[in-house]
Amino acid sequence: MGSGSLSGEEALVLREDRFFDPDPAVRRIACELYAGTRNLPIVSPHGHVDPGLLSDNLPWPDATTLLITPDHYLHRLLYARGVPLEALGVARRDGTPVESDPRRVWRLFAEHYYLFRATPSAAWLEHELYELFGVRQRLGAESADRIFDQIGEQLRSPEFHPRALYRRFNIEVLATTDAPSDSLEHHAAIAASAWGGRVIPTFRPDNVFRLASPEWAHAVAALGSGIDGWESLLQALERRRGFFKQHGATATDHAVLEPYTEQVRPEEAERLFRLGQTGSATSEDQRRFEGALLLEMARMSVADGLVMQLHAGAFRNHNQQLFERFGPDRGGDVPLATEWSHNIRPLLNAFGNDGRLTLILFTLDESAYSRELAPLAGHYPAVRLGSPWWFHDSIEGMLRFRESTSETAGIYKTVGFNDDTRAFCSIPARHDLSRRVDANWLARLVSRHSIGMADAHAMARALAYDLAREAYRLGA
Amino acid sequence: MGSGSLSGEEALVLREDRFFDPDPAVRRIACELYAGTRNLPIVSPHGHVDPGLLSDNLPWPDATTLLITPDHYLHRLLYARGVPLEALGVARRDGTPVESDPRRVWRLFAEHYYLFRATPSAAWLEHELYELFGVRQRLGAESADRIFDQIGEQLRSPEFHPRALYRRFNIEVLATTDAPSDSLEHHAAIAASAWGGRVIPTFRPDNVFRLASPEWAHAVAALGSGIDGWESLLQALERRRGFFKQHGATATDHAVLEPYTEQVRPEEAERLFRLGQTGSATSEDQRRFEGALLLEMARMSVADGLVMQLHAGAFRNHNQQLFERFGPDRGGDVPLATEWSHNIRPLLNAFGNDGRLTLILFTLDESAYSRELAPLAGHYPAVRLGSPWWFHDSIEGMLRFRESTSETAGIYKTVGFNDDTRAFCSIPARHDLSRRVDANWLARLVSRHSIGMADAHAMARALAYDLAREAYRLGA
Amino acid sequence: MGSGSLSGEEALVLREDRFFDPDPAVRRIACELYAGTRNLPIVSPHGHVDPGLLSDNLPWPDATTLLITPDHYLHRLLYARGVPLEALGVARRDGTPVESDPRRVWRLFAEHYYLFRATPSAAWLEHELYELFGVRQRLGAESADRIFDQIGEQLRSPEFHPRALYRRFNIEVLATTDAPSDSLEHHAAIAASAWGGRVIPTFRPDNVFRLASPEWAHAVAALGSGIDGWESLLQALERRRGFFKQHGATATDHAVLEPYTEQVRPEEAERLFRLGQTGSATSEDQRRFEGALLLEMARMSVADGLVMQLHAGAFRNHNQQLFERFGPDRGGDVPLATEWSHNIRPLLNAFGNDGRLTLILFTLDESAYSRELAPLAGHYPAVRLGSPWWFHDSIEGMLRFRESTSETAGIYKTVGFNDDTRAFCSIPARHDLSRRVDANWLARLVSRHSIGMADAHAMARALAYDLAREAYRLGA
Repeated sequence: MGSGSLSGEEALVLREDRFFDPDPAVRRIACELYAGTRNLPIVSPHGHVDPGLLSDNLPWPDATTLLITPDHYLHRLLYARGVPLEALGVARRDGTPVESDPRRVWRLFAEHYYLFRATPSAAWLEHELYELFGVRQRLGAESADRIFDQIGEQLRSPEFHPRALYRRFNIEVLATTDAPSDSLEHHAAIAASAWGGRVIPTFRPDNVFRLASPEWAHAVAALGSGIDGWESLLQALERRRGFFKQHGATATDHAVLEPYTEQVRPEEAERLFRLGQTGSATSEDQRRFEGALLLEMARMSVADGLVMQLHAGAFRNHNQQLFERFGPDRGGDVPLATEWSHNIRPLLNAFGNDGRLTLILFTLDESAYSRELAPLAGHYPAVRLGSPWWFHDSIEGMLRFRESTSETAGIYKTVGFNDDTRAFCSIPARHDLSRRVDANWLARLVSRHSIGMADAHAMARALAYDLAREAYRLGA
Repeated sequence: MGSGSLSGEEALVLREDRFFDPDPAVRRIACELYAGTRNLPIVSPHGHVDPGLLSDNLPWPDATTLLITPDHYLHRLLYARGVPLEALGVARRDGTPVESDPRRVWRLFAEHYYLFRATPSAAWLEHELYELFGVRQRLGAESADRIFDQIGEQLRSPEFHPRALYRRFNIEVLATTDAPSDSLEHHAAIAASAWGGRVIPTFRPDNVFRLASPEWAHAVAALGSGIDGWESLLQALERRRGFFKQHGATATDHAVLEPYTEQVRPEEAERLFRLGQTGSATSEDQRRFEGALLLEMARMSVADGLVMQLHAGAFRNHNQQLFERFGPDRGGDVPLATEWSHNIRPLLNAFGNDGRLTLILFTLDESAYSRELAPLAGHYPAVRLGSPWWFHDSIEGMLRFRESTSETAGIYKTVGFNDDTRAFCSIPARHDLSRRVDANWLARLVSRHSIGMADAHAMARALAYDLAREAYRLGA
Repeated sequence: MGSGSLSGEEALVLREDRFFDPDPAVRRIACELYAGTRNLPIVSPHGHVDPGLLSDNLPWPDATTLLITPDHYLHRLLYARGVPLEALGVARRDGTPVESDPRRVWRLFAEHYYLFRATPSAAWLEHELYELFGVRQRLGAESADRIFDQIGEQLRSPEFHPRALYRRFNIEVLATTDAPSDSLEHHAAIAASAWGGRVIPTFRPDNVFRLASPEWAHAVAALGSGIDGWESLLQALERRRGFFKQHGATATDHAVLEPYTEQVRPEEAERLFRLGQTGSATSEDQRRFEGALLLEMARMSVADGLVMQLHAGAFRNHNQQLFERFGPDRGGDVPLATEWSHNIRPLLNAFGNDGRLTLILFTLDESAYSRELAPLAGHYPAVRLGSPWWFHDSIEGMLRFRESTSETAGIYKTVGFNDDTRAFCSIPARHDLSRRVDANWLARLVSRHSIGMADAHAMARALAYDLAREAYRLGA
């Protein structure tokens, strides 16, 4: 029960059997299954950690920079209750000064920490505080300063530098997400170093897809010189994929508003390309261009073996005022209902029966889990179900995913867990939570006599480790 | 086990720990949490009780008039199994006589009471019978007459008059829902009386929104004289809002088919207004007119501080034949899939970042909870999630709401409970059920070590009392 | 724990209390409720068993022909993990030879059986192996041959011939699904025989609905001679319905992409008919033609009393390549989001208040359960909710159905269970699983004090037996 000088409610206590059902039979089985997966290495095939962190290996200056700044999940709920982002130290595009004292940001966060009750953000943060920094006090207005100091002191020690934490976290491989024109210098530097951690890039050419964006021409030009049409664009993309593959990439990633795909004739694709060049493409032109490019990405994946990830359904920068003031990725993204059966059919009819393709589908529209995604994954050899994404990477969200997809597609058409995070230190917390939720789900099945313990152990390991390695081709 | 002369199955028994999980750990915690909220005053910020009930304070004549007549939830399932509404005493528009003997209606209801097994209607009704009238027999064909007489006798006593029950129910404030042209005479009479109950109106100008309806011109004229265009309509609405505010209103309410909003230029709004005047507006014209008016309502709310409620997605009067025979609100309303992210964006881009606005969103499309509504509420300062509405005001419905929204938006972006009822005597039953369901949900979290008991107590109180007062600005 | 020579994990053990919650209170009540329904006769009002099976009464040659071949649920997950359908013995349209050795197919299936962990297919198959054939070994690569031989030996015995199994399964009535032009010779032969089993046809005129299909004209011609327009088509359909009714049919069945209905004027219907005759109908023409025919089917049902089933939302033959190689019903069907409120309204406004019509609605879009279907069934006298269909005929799927619909529509607007299977020997397994899931759902309600035991027993019986007989008018 932690420090004796704290009352039960002031002490931060992480129970060994947390997040498991209270039923004694389920809890006992869940503990046993979790014991078999908790120490497996972390395979992180999809995320947004800055690779410079691990190539530079510089210490973090303080708790705010480490834990709050890179995690816009944490900014969201404060902003939604009226706290200005400026007060949280989020930089403004126009250069207006914002709060620059990390301690004051930390205090502000601590005062509002009650907003996170029953959220996964709280579960992750408490895991980090407790397991990584040995904090034994609950975060709040009164404890804020003491915890800030405690973390700050530890961050100065070499064992809290990024590469040391990578080892401590038992990470086997960490995939980043990178622009298609990226030099991958950090990945190269890590590979060339004696350190030996495996940090690999992921090819994410979204900016080349957004034909109607003012930045499109620049994004295309950044891929290489002489790109003057559809064919040369495809060739440039093939070259860049090859470059990523040389630097260890095993996957591409694609974010689209809807998962629309279309077989577009080359002349028509060429015409769309020229509309982009002249800045006259409409959002409908972009939709078809993206639909055509997705088909090309699948074709290239068949050829070069890069696993293809497709994330659909996020309306980005929904809050125009916030976007103008702070830029993207500030919490103003809102999901949409997403149609898959019609939209993805042209791609699947072209490549869905080809065992060389692995296409991983992610959605923010949970109603599609049982309606479209599990039936698609339970039939097409190429299709895999991505893990519960974003808002659904949560205890109830993960449970809904398993309960809605497993009976139709089984677990062997899923891909294990994605932490999908920018917040490096939250990686073990997120994987741990996922392993706990899966262990508990399996324990329920065992306790209902749906599966036996040997199967449950095999399934728990598959969900925690094997499936991610297999689906993302990371075993080599 | 109730009266000794009844067998277990004939006796009506309400267990103290009803609706809690059977797991002993969860049940014990749920009982403890519920003990902390069961006696809190009732805050009822949204409902449809006739204010005349409390200004006139006349006794109800019999059980049918009290319990069956105002509750079309109860008519529904009988009608759906073939019982004519005429036999339930529902008045026909054409004046054809219908059943007028309340005892016969009561008997008919009692004979079909088995249809309500496992429904919230049964839970509410049994709470009323047991707690309010001391009934200790289950309702059925054999007990119908005896229970009818038992209730009838009690209704003659002054302690069963409406104002006495208001006190007995421990109601702190009761909001009604009123047409924009309402004189609010009942509210004024209550305020002027020595009684001291707080019964406040809610401004619901739906009839002014329905541009294509034959009643539109009449509804506009009822707001005041000289309304001859868009600008004068807005001024009239501002005046009427002020009038409602003077009578205690803290909120407006708006029911729309879809939550479409649009920034419409004044000239265009003027043109739409004139189409309404000439009776030539189409449903598409109405959609844009409503979209423009919703933006104006938000603008006015920023100015006058009235909380804005938006209920979307009910296809009213789906059953044309029933509507023609009996009028609206007879059970023939059917929900629709509802899009929020695109539709509500113009309004939120105009006012969503303004802390002076509180916009409460209600849906009948549960797939939007986790997909659109929780992400919107978890980001925009102005947005709050309305409580589970209508068909979803039920045990499983409330649980799905909590499980689908809390991890993304937390509970502090929700508004507590709305009973939304016309049936005055069901108010305590409905709040009690809600408090039980929330206590049980929190007990599950505690028993899984997701939250501690102190947090759970604070959350239970927030859900039962604090959030409704805060969100609806009822604390004053 | 089965044979002493097997370890716990190698032995196939079916627990008496399988699929019940581990909570001791729930489990005890579930066992008691299930004890009251497990031996009730099987009413199978909707399925796809070949009636020739029971008229010819020929033995099955081997385990593969009995258990694997008619069950494309089992082919699906193997294909989805890269096993060619040819290797499973699925015939190709082009006559290319496929695997013809049933033992090799069985082995291949057994090697991949782990893919079915946590799926209903595994629950059904293990029920069949254990209960029907006395298998006490888990299926896997090592046990495949032994189990294949064990089943093969038993199949030669007369007690494993189809009619003997029909008796052993305690089937009261079995409905098949038949083309509208079917001669119903097997049904006639069974009726004329001394055997006495009740095997009845269902009128499913889908091929007459698909106006834009190249097979449409042929399907119409097969209904009878002289069909040269809309009116004569309707007359032919009425005649064929009468013929089915003479052979015992009590229901029709209709599969449509969307449940669109429309009141079409006769001249317009005539025009659409002629477009079909000339092969120039578009998919939009077909949509309206189907919408008009559904209204006519409802009208005929009012007249002749055949119960009308409507299955909407399956995009058939989504995988074009698979369809071309193997034909329909090979797993390549994917659900769609389905709108009901608008689409079905014309039909319901015409016939929804008519107590002579029973219209049973099935969906693959679970988001419609609580949003549209339960509200429709909880209001319109004619409407009933079909049981959880296809992918949702599973433990979690059935539970979601009950939890999403019961509070709004009660259980008395549902129709019990449909096994919907081509796999004759899976019928008892499927009904048993359904009875277990319902018993467990009711046990949860009892243990939460939502309902009492007498009500729960009555509800369990209704869900297992009474409602299917009543809704499908099978009591006569």
